[in-house]
Amino acid sequence: MTQTPQDQSDRPVIRLKPKANARAIRHGSPWVFDNELVTDRRTKKIAAGGIATLEDAGREVLGTVAVSPGSRIFARILDRDPTAQIDVDWFKTKLQAALDHRARLFDAPFYRLIHAEADGLPGVIIDRFGDTAVIQPNAAWAEAHLDLLTEALMQVTGVTTVLKNAAGRARQLEGLDAENAVLRGAAPDAPVHVPMNGATYLADLTGGQKTGLFYDQRPNHAFAAGLSKGARVLDVFSHVGGFSLAALASGASSALAVDGSAAALALAEGGADAMGASDRFSTRKGDAFDVLTALNEEGAQFDVVICDPPAFAPSKRALEPGLRAYERVARLAATLVAPGGYLGLCSCSHAATIDKFRSASIRGIGRAERSSQLIHTGFAGADHPMHPQLAESGYLKSLFFRILP
Amino acid sequence: MTQTPQDQSDRPVIRLKPKANARAIRHGSPWVFDNELVTDRRTKKIAAGGIATLEDAGREVLGTVAVSPGSRIFARILDRDPTAQIDVDWFKTKLQAALDHRARLFDAPFYRLIHAEADGLPGVIIDRFGDTAVIQPNAAWAEAHLDLLTEALMQVTGVTTVLKNAAGRARQLEGLDAENAVLRGAAPDAPVHVPMNGATYLADLTGGQKTGLFYDQRPNHAFAAGLSKGARVLDVFSHVGGFSLAALASGASSALAVDGSAAALALAEGGADAMGASDRFSTRKGDAFDVLTALNEEGAQFDVVICDPPAFAPSKRALEPGLRAYERVARLAATLVAPGGYLGLCSCSHAATIDKFRSASIRGIGRAERSSQLIHTGFAGADHPMHPQLAESGYLKSLFFRILP
Repeated sequence: MTQTPQDQSDRPVIRLKPKANARAIRHGSPWVFDNELVTDRRTKKIAAGGIATLEDAGREVLGTVAVSPGSRIFARILDRDPTAQIDVDWFKTKLQAALDHRARLFDAPFYRLIHAEADGLPGVIIDRFGDTAVIQPNAAWAEAHLDLLTEALMQVTGVTTVLKNAAGRARQLEGLDAENAVLRGAAPDAPVHVPMNGATYLADLTGGQKTGLFYDQRPNHAFAAGLSKGARVLDVFSHVGGFSLAALASGASSALAVDGSAAALALAEGGADAMGASDRFSTRKGDAFDVLTALNEEGAQFDVVICDPPAFAPSKRALEPGLRAYERVARLAATLVAPGGYLGLCSCSHAATIDKFRSASIRGIGRAERSSQLIHTGFAGADHPMHPQLAESGYLKSLFFRILP
Repeated sequence: MTQTPQDQSDRPVIRLKPKANARAIRHGSPWVFDNELVTDRRTKKIAAGGIATLEDAGREVLGTVAVSPGSRIFARILDRDPTAQIDVDWFKTKLQAALDHRARLFDAPFYRLIHAEADGLPGVIIDRFGDTAVIQPNAAWAEAHLDLLTEALMQVTGVTTVLKNAAGRARQLEGLDAENAVLRGAAPDAPVHVPMNGATYLADLTGGQKTGLFYDQRPNHAFAAGLSKGARVLDVFSHVGGFSLAALASGASSALAVDGSAAALALAEGGADAMGASDRFSTRKGDAFDVLTALNEEGAQFDVVICDPPAFAPSKRALEPGLRAYERVARLAATLVAPGGYLGLCSCSHAATIDKFRSASIRGIGRAERSSQLIHTGFAGADHPMHPQLAESGYLKSLFFRILP
């Protein structure tokens, strides 16, 4: 599967059609779609994950690309230098640049180290949990170069265990399997303790969702925690307790985590236990809409309510029903907020722009007959950089409202 | 000028035209425009700043409004309750709700206390500097009720000095003068020391721009400061040193503040002095574009560069030239960032949406032939809440890029 570095002189060449937007690529666009390329017998024979040289229609060289012949994203720009060797040193340069940024951002080595295109490694996600790293190779070239990437990763960061998470849905589009693996070291036999915002989270790196923890919400957790001193906090769609444990670390008087997954709630309880905050923490397993409805019927009130649901609008087709679901969450949650309290609403749907998500949230609060102020809009943390040419595709949004007394 | 509370039974009535959007007002829209109202001799006789009852076209009562007969915003909703008395107690309720929120957000009493419509006092801005408050009554009703507001403000917050700042441009549209005043207590005879993000700022409450300090940038200052430990920082359009002093407080090795105003730079120097950071701080007075050009010619390099210009696109008509100015700032600043360093770009232009401002910034960085990641998007701080029906009008945006090595 993996390959040794290939001499660039042997590389196949792929060429843009005259109508393709070569200018966009020269200006940094990281992808070339299949309909922009002259595809002939020779280009179609390039192995999935192979390295090629990209030329414009006038045969001017544009750079070094990775090819996924079966994918709509036919080529990904790896390097503006057409002579670049995609070897351990090349990976080390990318990883070092990414590491320098995270080391400046965070005191402890727990973060997203590589966020795909923006960090110069298209389709590659790497999350770091101290001495352990989890790689998601979500493009054919990354799978094909996994040994080189892993070797470079260990050299640059000093991690001793490297896991492969193959659950990413993009892998199917790239013709890749869904088999997780231990690439180096030994898989941890217990959940890893992750310090973040003063809280302790338990991340199950082999059995959990995605890579076991969502680092992207860190600044939004911090914002919510800043509102939570002495507060009764409700954390709906809690996963492993992202918002509730941060709130407890900031002195919340109580936190209730609601999730449909018993395994996620058990990890949340483990985190609260590790923080010595179990006496202020409780969980409720169930469908979030059902639990929100039940809490309303019970007349429950909280000072801070956060809802961080899964992507209700994962695609454009799902946008309208997705927005109605966000509106419904806002409506059911708003009435649980004590007057003068706070409501945090999150969306991780690409298709729901910030304007549409905000409108749906405001409609929901209005339907709950509550008046509000919008006090904060947040996005994913700075260890989740965006490629400038893909910057409109930011997926994670959080809105914090104050429900007026 | 000021008036005693008026019995609601004496109040004039103003009525929506049948085509007006009564539903929007029922759903929380805070303004009624002149073309939405039946204006007759009687309504035109209402004194500027007078209180009236708003009815829909079917004579159903919608609430208590303040009237500005000469303004396009003819009426502002003050209360959904048509019997509300606009007296000291009414103001105290609004102020207490606003104060509770700020007390939760901040350890020290330095913040925007009232942010107009979102805090239930349309057209009113109040900034607090410890024992001193500065009111901007930017609507006729606020001017007319200034005594009641001031009295309530002192009772709720305990401030001993209240200043009136009449420089707001909106006052002209409301037919109000531009004369500042000392409403209570004595104007401070020296700049006030303001603690924020670990730094000390000097705010000149009687001679400075607006209310002497921009609290809105607080979270963006904090984000930049988080990147600045050991860094060489350039703060362009620095005003009183917003970004540079926060960076120095976070351990920047040096900070250079650039501004066209000698008075603002003198206050920045005073702040650095108060922090004991004068040895790491320097200033350069001049036109920001000229200084950026000169620094480029000198081959200067910084680890963190921030540009926080005045509104280049204050109106829709000024949008295109404004966006070109933002692009130019980005281009001139990007080349001053050392490889792997950070570039923060801010806009306080209403007309420049976040999408347009981001595109202009990315174009500028591209023209400087630099590759970048977008690592953070920020807005005004949580003491600058937005009214849900006006939430698209957020004026302040900040974008932080990493310039790739």
